[in-house]
Amino acid sequence: VSETADPSHPFDQAIALEPLGEGRFKGHTSDAYWNFTGPFGGTTAAVLLNAAMLHPKRIGTPLALTANYCAPLAKGAFEIHVREVRTNRSTQHWAIELTQGEAGTTAFATAVFAERRPGFAHQPARAPKAPPPETVAPLPMRGMMAWLERYEFRFTHNAPQPPLPEPAAEPRDALTHMWVNDKPARALDFPSLAAIADSFFGRIFHVRQAFVPIGTVSITTYFHADAQDLAAVGSAPLLGVADASVFAKGYFDQKAELWSRAGQLIATSHQIVYFRG
Amino acid sequence: VSETADPSHPFDQAIALEPLGEGRFKGHTSDAYWNFTGPFGGTTAAVLLNAAMLHPKRIGTPLALTANYCAPLAKGAFEIHVREVRTNRSTQHWAIELTQGEAGTTAFATAVFAERRPGFAHQPARAPKAPPPETVAPLPMRGMMAWLERYEFRFTHNAPQPPLPEPAAEPRDALTHMWVNDKPARALDFPSLAAIADSFFGRIFHVRQAFVPIGTVSITTYFHADAQDLAAVGSAPLLGVADASVFAKGYFDQKAELWSRAGQLIATSHQIVYFRG
Repeated sequence: VSETADPSHPFDQAIALEPLGEGRFKGHTSDAYWNFTGPFGGTTAAVLLNAAMLHPKRIGTPLALTANYCAPLAKGAFEIHVREVRTNRSTQHWAIELTQGEAGTTAFATAVFAERRPGFAHQPARAPKAPPPETVAPLPMRGMMAWLERYEFRFTHNAPQPPLPEPAAEPRDALTHMWVNDKPARALDFPSLAAIADSFFGRIFHVRQAFVPIGTVSITTYFHADAQDLAAVGSAPLLGVADASVFAKGYFDQKAELWSRAGQLIATSHQIVYFRG
Repeated sequence: VSETADPSHPFDQAIALEPLGEGRFKGHTSDAYWNFTGPFGGTTAAVLLNAAMLHPKRIGTPLALTANYCAPLAKGAFEIHVREVRTNRSTQHWAIELTQGEAGTTAFATAVFAERRPGFAHQPARAPKAPPPETVAPLPMRGMMAWLERYEFRFTHNAPQPPLPEPAAEPRDALTHMWVNDKPARALDFPSLAAIADSFFGRIFHVRQAFVPIGTVSITTYFHADAQDLAAVGSAPLLGVADASVFAKGYFDQKAELWSRAGQLIATSHQIVYFRG
């Protein structure tokens, strides 16, 4: 059932789960995707989704995933419990909870799976123009947080500027365009798509041109593609568009689109992010 | 704790809950907000949120709400169970589940509450220009579904056109602007905001100019305002902007913004919707 192409890939290791029966799975945080105070949230979302994908009663493919981050995961083992909330004819609802011993629940998610079928198709949204990824150098990432080295980010609009010692007095542009792909290359599947949806830098870094402490509180991703669409993407970069609407009272929103090179909207994603400052 | 201004208002009746202890509440569907095959999803989201708001351990105000609709609610009583998943210093995570006897779980939600605090403020998004609501006639709604009569919709861009007997061959514009307010008037609070976030007509009605069966599967709303901001809005209309990115394989996404007359972005919302056709 797992879409794992290569068990030696760090992403497959990060989302690997050992079934314990009755909807319980055991997993382990990945040093290769370590972030500042815990694992990269994208891998957490991905492993939560993967637990539902691996459930023997799963039908269809992911349609919606909401991952709530309650507290930083500690380095080490975790357990995931997947509960089948309801299965209808063509849709299925899941509640997924990640616990770490006495630390209690550190992440929980809801997911909807659906059996997709052909029908009316229309895409009012359009991908922005961008130079092909081959012509854009990836952002250098060596020596920074580990998870940043698990992706190639090729910015085509509003690349991050060197951080200022103090946040910029005047807010800068929050909108960015970038090509993004796993590093090393890996064929796109639903868990990796869920992770890539969280790979955009916090908009506040772009707007204030400075590092401030942030943490995603909740992220929701909608999958507009089926397994065949993902197979067509393969390991090619996706064009990611990210922006923010508002920074207010300690939180900002972040909205993202992920486009195939062929111009198909593969996923849309939204998150609400805590920031200090 | 309830923000109920007037227990005789149909919205307050629709979200009224009787505490049963240990995070359990009893509620009842509202005929005044009846939709086609069940209650208006906005009131379901609102009553799920209200259950968390009424929980004695609740801190702060709503930051994020994801409501998943598993099956249509039957007319009559329901029970809601609110579980405090985790409480941090300034944030709190909730799991909220609505059951109807042997029908099992028909809706469940996750919510994040937060104690908001002042800090960096910036609103890159801008409200679209719109004529003032006083100058726009509400869409006539008499004799249609009951919930439509609980709001005033004053379209300022792309008002719904009379449905065609067959869907339009060429897709129409999905983007709409409308002023929206409770009818009768009611001071805005978090539950009513959660409901208004779901009051936008299915984008497929605009795009195909025809009625096709639809159903929201999951809706996520981010609250960018605190109680003081909502008090400043009072019962004034909000400017609602709604659009869709893609209709594919039986589902479309719907994204919405709700603006105060003063130009403050009060909430953003996203949903994924099943459609037939």
